Amino acid sequence: MSIRTLIRGGLVITAADELHADVLIEDGRVAALAAHGSAAAEAWTADRTIDASGKYVIPGGVDAHTHMELPFGGTAASDTFETGTRAAAWGGTTTIVDFAVQSMGQALRQGLDTWYDKADGKCSVDYAFHMILSDVNEGTLKEMDHLVGEGVTSFKLFMAYPGVFYSDDGQILRAMQRASGNGGLIMMHAENGIAIDVLVEQALARGETDPRHHGEVRKVLLEAEATHRAIQLARVAGSPLYVVHVSAEEAVAELAAARDKGLPVFGETCPQYLFLSTDNLEEPDFQGAKYVCSTPLRPKEHQAALWRGLRTNDLQVVSTDHCPFCFRGQKELGRGDFSKIPNGLPGVENRMDLLHQAVLDGHISRRRWIEIACASPARMFGLYPQKGTIAPGSDADIVLYDPHAEQVISAETHHMNVDYSAYEGKRITGRVDTVLSRGELVIDRREYTGRAGHGVFVPRSTCQYL
Amino acid sequence: MSIRTLIRGGLVITAADELHADVLIEDGRVAALAAHGSAAAEAWTADRTIDASGKYVIPGGVDAHTHMELPFGGTAASDTFETGTRAAAWGGTTTIVDFAVQSMGQALRQGLDTWYDKADGKCSVDYAFHMILSDVNEGTLKEMDHLVGEGVTSFKLFMAYPGVFYSDDGQILRAMQRASGNGGLIMMHAENGIAIDVLVEQALARGETDPRHHGEVRKVLLEAEATHRAIQLARVAGSPLYVVHVSAEEAVAELAAARDKGLPVFGETCPQYLFLSTDNLEEPDFQGAKYVCSTPLRPKEHQAALWRGLRTNDLQVVSTDHCPFCFRGQKELGRGDFSKIPNGLPGVENRMDLLHQAVLDGHISRRRWIEIACASPARMFGLYPQKGTIAPGSDADIVLYDPHAEQVISAETHHMNVDYSAYEGKRITGRVDTVLSRGELVIDRREYTGRAGHGVFVPRSTCQYL
Amino acid sequence: MSIRTLIRGGLVITAADELHADVLIEDGRVAALAAHGSAAAEAWTADRTIDASGKYVIPGGVDAHTHMELPFGGTAASDTFETGTRAAAWGGTTTIVDFAVQSMGQALRQGLDTWYDKADGKCSVDYAFHMILSDVNEGTLKEMDHLVGEGVTSFKLFMAYPGVFYSDDGQILRAMQRASGNGGLIMMHAENGIAIDVLVEQALARGETDPRHHGEVRKVLLEAEATHRAIQLARVAGSPLYVVHVSAEEAVAELAAARDKGLPVFGETCPQYLFLSTDNLEEPDFQGAKYVCSTPLRPKEHQAALWRGLRTNDLQVVSTDHCPFCFRGQKELGRGDFSKIPNGLPGVENRMDLLHQAVLDGHISRRRWIEIACASPARMFGLYPQKGTIAPGSDADIVLYDPHAEQVISAETHHMNVDYSAYEGKRITGRVDTVLSRGELVIDRREYTGRAGHGVFVPRSTCQYL
Amino acid sequence: MSIRTLIRGGLVITAADELHADVLIEDGRVAALAAHGSAAAEAWTADRTIDASGKYVIPGGVDAHTHMELPFGGTAASDTFETGTRAAAWGGTTTIVDFAVQSMGQALRQGLDTWYDKADGKCSVDYAFHMILSDVNEGTLKEMDHLVGEGVTSFKLFMAYPGVFYSDDGQILRAMQRASGNGGLIMMHAENGIAIDVLVEQALARGETDPRHHGEVRKVLLEAEATHRAIQLARVAGSPLYVVHVSAEEAVAELAAARDKGLPVFGETCPQYLFLSTDNLEEPDFQGAKYVCSTPLRPKEHQAALWRGLRTNDLQVVSTDHCPFCFRGQKELGRGDFSKIPNGLPGVENRMDLLHQAVLDGHISRRRWIEIACASPARMFGLYPQKGTIAPGSDADIVLYDPHAEQVISAETHHMNVDYSAYEGKRITGRVDTVLSRGELVIDRREYTGRAGHGVFVPRSTCQYL
Repeated sequence: MSIRTLIRGGLVITAADELHADVLIEDGRVAALAAHGSAAAEAWTADRTIDASGKYVIPGGVDAHTHMELPFGGTAASDTFETGTRAAAWGGTTTIVDFAVQSMGQALRQGLDTWYDKADGKCSVDYAFHMILSDVNEGTLKEMDHLVGEGVTSFKLFMAYPGVFYSDDGQILRAMQRASGNGGLIMMHAENGIAIDVLVEQALARGETDPRHHGEVRKVLLEAEATHRAIQLARVAGSPLYVVHVSAEEAVAELAAARDKGLPVFGETCPQYLFLSTDNLEEPDFQGAKYVCSTPLRPKEHQAALWRGLRTNDLQVVSTDHCPFCFRGQKELGRGDFSKIPNGLPGVENRMDLLHQAVLDGHISRRRWIEIACASPARMFGLYPQKGTIAPGSDADIVLYDPHAEQVISAETHHMNVDYSAYEGKRITGRVDTVLSRGELVIDRREYTGRAGHGVFVPRSTCQYL
Repeated sequence: MSIRTLIRGGLVITAADELHADVLIEDGRVAALAAHGSAAAEAWTADRTIDASGKYVIPGGVDAHTHMELPFGGTAASDTFETGTRAAAWGGTTTIVDFAVQSMGQALRQGLDTWYDKADGKCSVDYAFHMILSDVNEGTLKEMDHLVGEGVTSFKLFMAYPGVFYSDDGQILRAMQRASGNGGLIMMHAENGIAIDVLVEQALARGETDPRHHGEVRKVLLEAEATHRAIQLARVAGSPLYVVHVSAEEAVAELAAARDKGLPVFGETCPQYLFLSTDNLEEPDFQGAKYVCSTPLRPKEHQAALWRGLRTNDLQVVSTDHCPFCFRGQKELGRGDFSKIPNGLPGVENRMDLLHQAVLDGHISRRRWIEIACASPARMFGLYPQKGTIAPGSDADIVLYDPHAEQVISAETHHMNVDYSAYEGKRITGRVDTVLSRGELVIDRREYTGRAGHGVFVPRSTCQYL
Repeated sequence: MSIRTLIRGGLVITAADELHADVLIEDGRVAALAAHGSAAAEAWTADRTIDASGKYVIPGGVDAHTHMELPFGGTAASDTFETGTRAAAWGGTTTIVDFAVQSMGQALRQGLDTWYDKADGKCSVDYAFHMILSDVNEGTLKEMDHLVGEGVTSFKLFMAYPGVFYSDDGQILRAMQRASGNGGLIMMHAENGIAIDVLVEQALARGETDPRHHGEVRKVLLEAEATHRAIQLARVAGSPLYVVHVSAEEAVAELAAARDKGLPVFGETCPQYLFLSTDNLEEPDFQGAKYVCSTPLRPKEHQAALWRGLRTNDLQVVSTDHCPFCFRGQKELGRGDFSKIPNGLPGVENRMDLLHQAVLDGHISRRRWIEIACASPARMFGLYPQKGTIAPGSDADIVLYDPHAEQVISAETHHMNVDYSAYEGKRITGRVDTVLSRGELVIDRREYTGRAGHGVFVPRSTCQYL
Repeated sequence: MSIRTLIRGGLVITAADELHADVLIEDGRVAALAAHGSAAAEAWTADRTIDASGKYVIPGGVDAHTHMELPFGGTAASDTFETGTRAAAWGGTTTIVDFAVQSMGQALRQGLDTWYDKADGKCSVDYAFHMILSDVNEGTLKEMDHLVGEGVTSFKLFMAYPGVFYSDDGQILRAMQRASGNGGLIMMHAENGIAIDVLVEQALARGETDPRHHGEVRKVLLEAEATHRAIQLARVAGSPLYVVHVSAEEAVAELAAARDKGLPVFGETCPQYLFLSTDNLEEPDFQGAKYVCSTPLRPKEHQAALWRGLRTNDLQVVSTDHCPFCFRGQKELGRGDFSKIPNGLPGVENRMDLLHQAVLDGHISRRRWIEIACASPARMFGLYPQKGTIAPGSDADIVLYDPHAEQVISAETHHMNVDYSAYEGKRITGRVDTVLSRGELVIDRREYTGRAGHGVFVPRSTCQYL
């Protein structure tokens, strides 16, 4: 680790700047940046010099929403922490924030320890945890304080999935009040699951069992409603709020209205909502099941609102909600009953590339690419500037990105442990070339040189937007 | 009933018109109107001629929200149908729409029949029923259709009072879907009771037990939230919605936004929200308990928004939510615990006068007075033009109103069976002089000439605003 | 005039009511209404009894926006007061409010007298005047007070047509301040004509000379902008505002936002915006010129917003802006230069029928039909209840409307003095059968029985919505 | 210039980061940043080492709105480029963007050359120019392209001051269209001056001549109206828009609404609107004249909306609109007629300090302080990253700021050439200690070590937010 590395000649892109600068790494951290050709830069020597000419030098991606090995609907997400973090590295992501799950009746402690065990010694890149609260009660409220103390500073609640993850409005209010006191950030799955389950039952009763009905019953208005309700409850509690996987224009509008008032309300969307749509859910031969996730994919018209939200900063973060299930044997559990299809898509490997393509497509600027994929998730979840930027003192989590390389996304070439790709056949300009995690090469010119166990748990401070 | 009555010389005021016209009544109905002094008018003769010079001739009031003899919190509202409808007549109201209650586990039928029995043979003026659904299930959903058929065409649901009247969002959605099919109108008590109950518990735990805390825990944002949610659920169901006792500016804003979109969303407020405020809840010596009702009284600033809503037609109806409990022995049940104070205020006798005062105070026009107190509630609940106006063919429910008389509201002089007045000492210009119900004199120049049993059940058609 | 007329057996429809009532007319006024079959009705006798069975008995239409004989662009509107009011009668309209024009440099008096002269002795139905202010100055401001006194209580200003009718924001503010004091109502042509004229010049310079370019340069945003500006100026002046010929969804939104605040802001639209669109402007062979008016026709999508505005009462009035120019010789003046096409459409004869068709098409209710076409314009311009309703004391301006008759609109059969119809070939269900003006038959079962000179000038009181 | 300077031990604060880093300066530019105590930092040597321990190391301020030597109302702003830029340096501002003025009838060239001459050889810090267009015509439109080419890339228009700077909506539209093509940014003084001038005349006629009437006649609604209009015109032209000196809550709301739609609309406010109010305009003995500027100071309640706008990024920039006139002899020109008071306040020296105080008062974060005062104005006007940040390659315009020093603002101690301070007596925590401009010491530990002529004209690229 005492190796001294110098990255020469690249264009350093952060959320704030595009700099023609060389980057000097000491002891796994960024020690200094110097302008190309300056006397200071010229004077530098290093053990290892990486030529970045013609490449972008960007912070490693921070994916704030993954579900490795998540048990769901009688099966489990197909990526382990080992396969999932390796795929993340291939895709230029050097930090994931995964979700530890409290099971009903368990203490948070118990759930969190289970997830520590799952990840320990398996990860190619660094990781942190949010905590899913399935059961808000006096005991778990107190535990929240302890978790904030040990660096698990965000807590996810569900307004959907009654009987599994669902919290009622009273539980939500109590958890928000607690977060308001201990600095925790409440993350919300905002869908009115109580109403949706009525529509699910009615659809199935009408014989509407195909994957596309998954999209039809989980209505836009019921996402917007829950988003609005979560915001109001947060106002009552005096707490901040982060809404996960925002997919509907009307939900973005609720966030925008709240933010116009100056409220500490934040929103995340995911590549699947930006690039896919109900058209995919309608693919024949049950192929639509590949795209079943909740919130569901929306009609194409919603994409423009999401891109606009990312530009206006009414949405701040793009995460993946990576939660892969193989088509064979897993997605197929829901043949004949869309409500039995495991919810989730693979994506941890594709996020940085898809968003670079969005730069080329004119949706966002280069700096905004880095902001929504690296800097903002790091700030949101208390990891900045250790993660999410390239600055003196930061962890040397750095990606050399070739903006001109061309690739075609495919399950045949991807590294995620899942038998299909949600973006099969999509052409992308841009590709990860080399990845460093705390100064170590994990991907070296398109070869994996990392190892399970390099990645460590990163305790987080509280949200840095407050 | 075959008596022919002629009302001469008054100013006939309806929601639409102010006319210098004589009114001819045959067989309990308005047979004709003729311009003062026209040959047609001059030619009329009658068995009984009432001189209305200097008076307004207005439709009898329609109070679409009363709770006579309602069991609540271990006691019952202190007005029976007999005392309550007599007081209504004294106050110029000739039709009430009361709420039959389904108890948990009962059929709607059972609840409705109980209320038919309570009212039968007791009423001085006509009455109709809404149905409160405490338990939405397959059986009660089917019963809704039958009730619509027999003239009980509106159904009240509660987003508050879990364990008593509360319906969850799935039940609400199902009831709305049913109403969407059978023409019924869903009436909503819109407060997030689940969240409120958390705040109640916390307040009591902090020793905040006085009546004023009732107002503090039932937060404006939680009324607005529930209003918004009810609107969204109605949109999903494709049904109209009528929100009862709107009290907060933010809730009016939700209604206004929905109505700007052209949605069939309606709102009612009550005199207590227009004339009283949290100042009353803070009256010392537990006197604040007199003003405990839900939604609660709000800070004074909200009154302007309610008046504006009435002017802009974002609120359409002023009802009383008449639900009286005596201070002694009833309100006192909540000494030391505001959550045990029976919720409700007396008002059925005061509504027409208070709103006439609002005309003099410049809040509304004379025609709007009649509209919000007579015509709109009649239209909203399928009673127009039988009730709510003075037109050929209408029931001769007519009030001669003296716009210049002065009175002071007081429990000593009112006719409601309750030991206090919410408006004690308030000076009003204007007073009911004479009241006819279907052509019969109920109040004759400030004397009660009616009788229990004159009033009959009026089956209603469906909402006439759709 | 002392003839006594009885209209038996029809369905009387007003803005407020639908009544099965007979109508008795004495001395040109409605003396009484009585329920069908009542003893009162049965007792009536009359000199003339009209059988209205199977027909609607509705108030004569009030068209609050016509331009008979208007000089414009070197020519003049092709309908005289004689031909125009006769056509109005054929179409069921019994009152027009036309625009007297102040020419630059003239006194208002001079302009008004000119228009008195034009109309005097020529009209088949009653008429009133608004005043167009082309030159706001100290003298004309003072004259406004006198005009209000003589029953010309509304004043139109233009934010378009610089050099002709245009007033700058300072002149507008002064006129509004004056109206705020004398009770006058400011009517506004709301288009940013200064900006539009730049776009006109640029379009012509690019060789875009066809009629459709008229629609393209007069942009939606510039109508919305002017509407917003007029509202703000009215707020500064403390005056009400009536925006004429609203055509764009975005302009309706400005009105709706103002009305939600409770501001006295009103809006009118016209049949051409509800039934026609830019598709018409694009008709080949210069036929598009037939549809050139300002504000211009809009893309079809705007129609839904206008209908919604009429339902939500964000728009209150449908007038015609009747201003016909023959295609041959008049519209043709603009061949090769759309800016030279005289602006205006014929319509005074078609309004009541088109709006009845809208009832059948489900856009509005029957009562709303009468409200927007009769009652609201009468109230808006101080004519109610003399005009706009059927009530004891009202002028007996009454139309028997056959709701089942079918007709096809065509220039071959219409009675307006213009060589084309904007609605040529359109099928309508419903037709005027008989028209009375102050009790006299003007149209008797589809025959013209009226006469030039029957119609008289009607002085108006001030706006009755304030 | 070949001197090598090292700033050691400070906390480097930029819009993006707070870094414990040393800064190395070579040839007037920032060569490198290195983490405190890193081997790289330790290895650095320099000609001059500045100890920044306990201090903030921040980018020099960029004041994008100053008026040195501006002729106005028969007098001229009292600061020359020499006195004004020296005062700027004292206040931690190292770049000003001043306004060259086209006089009516002149070419832009002529005006710009005049301003080049005024500034040349006089300035202590760098400067750039915007161009004021007083006369939009074919010639000046063409000149806009040339000015963009030479680094004058922004153009100010006025919707106020008819006869002096005023452009009508057609001229505004044309200028915006041109800017849309050449990349220029239109800056707008958004007040409806035509309407305001009517109110001014009326106020004076009523004898309302005191300074406070200046605030009363320039109404909030007329600022909001003009803001809305400018936005709509920009939408028609397809151009971006920057609104200067936003002072009213309602104007912020217009910007927020536009930005929610994703429109390229920007807003600036100034310290006087954040810290002063109409209370100051009401100071007795004509002292209110000191605070006369346009847009005017607003009632205190508006301040909260401005701070919120700065936090939500609906406002992006805080400039000073520095335009000083001495009380004696200049402001006094308006005794007895507020409309003759020269419009403007001094402030270029106070901005950085006042905004640091806002950090301590909890209005904004430290990074946001630097963003609104340095980075955003630099990006907005095409100067970033040369100006506005501390990054490898940037100009070494750096301020050492002592966050703990205390000071009292006073005309007795300030360096601006004006006989009063708008903030006289205000206590501030925080003070500029040392200022470098392109690596040269201008202020060295509270001593002026700069020189007139060090500052040079900086050509600007176009707006970097587009």
